[in-house]
Amino acid sequence: MKNFFESAKPFHAALVLAQSKIQPITETQEVPTVDVLGRVLASEIVSPKDLPGFARSGMDGYAVHSLDTQGASSQRPIELKVMGRAEMGQDPASLPKLENGQAMEIGTGGPLPPGADAIVILEETERISDSRVKIFSSISTGIHVIVPDEDFKKGEQIYMTGHRIRPVDIGALLALGYTRVNVFRRLKVGVISTGDELVPAETQPKPGQIREINSHILKAQLTELGAQAQLFGIVRDDRSALLKTVQRALDETDFVLLSGGSSVGAKDLTEQVLGELGQIYIHGLHMKPGKPTIFALCSNKPVVGLPGNPVSSAVVFAKFVAPLIMKSAGALTSLALRRERGTLHEEIKSVRGRTDFVPVVLHFEGESPQIERVKGHTTNISTLAKAEGLLYIEPDSEGFSQGDVVWFEIW
Amino acid sequence: MKNFFESAKPFHAALVLAQSKIQPITETQEVPTVDVLGRVLASEIVSPKDLPGFARSGMDGYAVHSLDTQGASSQRPIELKVMGRAEMGQDPASLPKLENGQAMEIGTGGPLPPGADAIVILEETERISDSRVKIFSSISTGIHVIVPDEDFKKGEQIYMTGHRIRPVDIGALLALGYTRVNVFRRLKVGVISTGDELVPAETQPKPGQIREINSHILKAQLTELGAQAQLFGIVRDDRSALLKTVQRALDETDFVLLSGGSSVGAKDLTEQVLGELGQIYIHGLHMKPGKPTIFALCSNKPVVGLPGNPVSSAVVFAKFVAPLIMKSAGALTSLALRRERGTLHEEIKSVRGRTDFVPVVLHFEGESPQIERVKGHTTNISTLAKAEGLLYIEPDSEGFSQGDVVWFEIW
Repeated sequence: MKNFFESAKPFHAALVLAQSKIQPITETQEVPTVDVLGRVLASEIVSPKDLPGFARSGMDGYAVHSLDTQGASSQRPIELKVMGRAEMGQDPASLPKLENGQAMEIGTGGPLPPGADAIVILEETERISDSRVKIFSSISTGIHVIVPDEDFKKGEQIYMTGHRIRPVDIGALLALGYTRVNVFRRLKVGVISTGDELVPAETQPKPGQIREINSHILKAQLTELGAQAQLFGIVRDDRSALLKTVQRALDETDFVLLSGGSSVGAKDLTEQVLGELGQIYIHGLHMKPGKPTIFALCSNKPVVGLPGNPVSSAVVFAKFVAPLIMKSAGALTSLALRRERGTLHEEIKSVRGRTDFVPVVLHFEGESPQIERVKGHTTNISTLAKAEGLLYIEPDSEGFSQGDVVWFEIW
Repeated sequence: MKNFFESAKPFHAALVLAQSKIQPITETQEVPTVDVLGRVLASEIVSPKDLPGFARSGMDGYAVHSLDTQGASSQRPIELKVMGRAEMGQDPASLPKLENGQAMEIGTGGPLPPGADAIVILEETERISDSRVKIFSSISTGIHVIVPDEDFKKGEQIYMTGHRIRPVDIGALLALGYTRVNVFRRLKVGVISTGDELVPAETQPKPGQIREINSHILKAQLTELGAQAQLFGIVRDDRSALLKTVQRALDETDFVLLSGGSSVGAKDLTEQVLGELGQIYIHGLHMKPGKPTIFALCSNKPVVGLPGNPVSSAVVFAKFVAPLIMKSAGALTSLALRRERGTLHEEIKSVRGRTDFVPVVLHFEGESPQIERVKGHTTNISTLAKAEGLLYIEPDSEGFSQGDVVWFEIW
């Protein structure tokens, strides 16, 4: 019996190889900045001007000539003439020029009047009349002044092409005056399920049949990455039917996922079809779960054959496919990990050379959270549904002992 | 001069107090399971039946009577009669009953024929003819058999009310036959911006004016949490205008955020209005950024007055408001942290008793990533736009020294 996956590649080497084969999409579109959450920038963003663009106060207090305050102290305050108040939103050019011996009341964010070069904070002043204020400290030039280019400098690069937009980036883009931005169009990803035992999730399975759930999990995972999933339904384990559907998915989308039948025959079929339509680069990953994973380029588009069991499919997507999707979508950044720490409640073994992702839950007992492996067969969707995280076991490790303090990734 | 925030509460105490005041929403709706990503379950989910519901093979091989294999070894194989193949998707009841001395070919996931109680894996067999197979190992009952309730047991609780749906949960719900589920309706959150210096983000600010960006950042942050933002525009620093808009937001939404003017006058105004409409519980947080934060209940709805500067607003939202939003939305779980580790490139000081969140970036030099504080005034939106994470400084710490290895939260 030939072992189909005798050529299983170490996890990281496989990821690097697959990433090297992927060409990001190039089509772009202009989108209102307020709708750009999660999209990927297709142009670099450079500040078109200085921001805030005018000198502002960083504190509540009085705008002054700093030289006027020299020698002032709580014992020996100096007095300045109050020339009214610099109101929020007021054009600085409309304010009277501050002469020596004068001060102007100002709030945090208020515009500095011409002539002023520093702010004395409210706590170091005492207003003795409408027109007079005592100053109790000596300050130097620039103190508590937000300079005109303090936030952004004209010509400064703010974002690189490939930056994925977070909420705060929307604010920064709007602050810079970009009310529309150029982003890559959404990546279209085709999802094909194969397997004779599968029935659509909304139908009642007969004995021996299984509801097809992988495509729906994959669609949700793709949605979280900002990609657009297109489901191509369930294909029976039949060469010509599979060939036709993969070809259609290659025509209509940018990236194709096959959620494969888990039998040896089904694997051979996927290999045959992908070999016929393009070139297979990866025949198996030395990871657990996820060994029977295939990576190919067909019509210059990435195709990943995922294992049929839902746990492997979901974990291989999260750890292996997601970075490939993000590269295809034009994104620069890798995906952020989300981690938590705890003490292992039991020994968890692995095999040197293999990368493991073990579904775990947290229990809070005593000082440190206890990490427990989720019980049940490793192919059960219930193990992932109950999991709060995935414990990552590096290929150079043979696993962990009970009592080890380890980090796991939030699932 | 009265210090408005003299009563600043420690960060965690404030969070606990505010959470204790919040009543989750109770209105629910039924949603197709395939559309339920990010929603919050309004009912517990119990398995309506055993799943997979029939005995399946966990490996490729032969279904056998385990007793038949007793004594078999590579030196002394036994022979069994092959009764065909159990095909994927086949009704187990349609398969012939396996008698002693018989075996049936089976793929991973295939239905166990009646009578069989174990699987011999392919690698421990040799097919010598169409109808005969040699078995090279002795196995006990149950080996490589996925029992009918292995994935889910009838009556077992799978999810608690309040669980927020991840991609894999969609798969588990569909596997259980739940094609529709009962979730809490989306939380509606009103966002009001105040400040005389603000102009709508899409307009060109005059000198002294600032584009209003906080409401757009907050809307994107709310979207990430699955809540629905309703923007009420910019209100001038005027008591009756603010009162009217807050009242309208309370009427139309479940939770109100005020992104406040940062001047003392504006803070007093927010306090006045919220005091008039309800009860203020928190007058300031002992955190940085974010000190001038107000929490109140008005008409039994939570209202948070956020600081006006965009950095404070975004950080207070992420760390203080987000857990309150999730509780209001009916969610049980707190928000997962996302963390990375590195070596501090410089000393970062804090104050005992205060909780700090410092915008940082990572640099990859040598072995360990170097963490650097983002340069610039702490109220600049550019500091957050450039940040890759927030370094969390606990209230019992006075900060970190250069060279400390620390964890920060991905921003």
